[in-house]
Amino acid sequence: MDSKDKIAVVERYVEAFDTADVGIIRDIYADNAVVEDPVGSEPHRGLDAICTFYEGAIGAGAKLVLTGTARCAGNAVAFPFQVIMPGMKLDVIDVFEFDDSGKINSMKAYWGPENAGE
Amino acid sequence: MDSKDKIAVVERYVEAFDTADVGIIRDIYADNAVVEDPVGSEPHRGLDAICTFYEGAIGAGAKLVLTGTARCAGNAVAFPFQVIMPGMKLDVIDVFEFDDSGKINSMKAYWGPENAGE
Repeated sequence: MDSKDKIAVVERYVEAFDTADVGIIRDIYADNAVVEDPVGSEPHRGLDAICTFYEGAIGAGAKLVLTGTARCAGNAVAFPFQVIMPGMKLDVIDVFEFDDSGKINSMKAYWGPENAGE
Repeated sequence: MDSKDKIAVVERYVEAFDTADVGIIRDIYADNAVVEDPVGSEPHRGLDAICTFYEGAIGAGAKLVLTGTARCAGNAVAFPFQVIMPGMKLDVIDVFEFDDSGKINSMKAYWGPENAGE
């Protein structure tokens, strides 16, 4: 999977929040994907559980702003961003891993209470 | 492991490059640690192999500058930074995972050729 294709998925991920379109989330994740957000919490397993999770975040009005370049390596991409919600900003790093068909099969989000601000 | 302790390890990691002190690397990694830099390449396994790897980078004059906040989650910390070497800058995201004694037992570095600049 080329870096440009991985970066395009990151851009579609940002677009899903911008346009409040969970259909994009359904399209970029594999059926059997696992989302751990934040790392250390109970993972969301499978596309339906994942879409329900994102409906919550997108429904709450969250937007994403990239705060650095996407780093592509192996079957993965890592990227730093800020989640912006009414009255709250949160610094996050996500790591996507892709399967052979170019779908995300693992997402890990790194953030903690220290990363929240106004 | 508290977030402040994880962040202190990140700061010591930066210091290891600043002061060209591989002794710090030997102190913050576990004996059986695995370093995959970049992700997708053959990992360096065990403290001796890891120190040899870092001696190369540190000996080449590499310095690290954090480019965002460290994100602590679960047993891990992820942080964005730039590697600065003569004539080259490289955007990287590292993920450290810690064992129960507070040593790094897994390091994954995310970067690709697209992340290099002058």
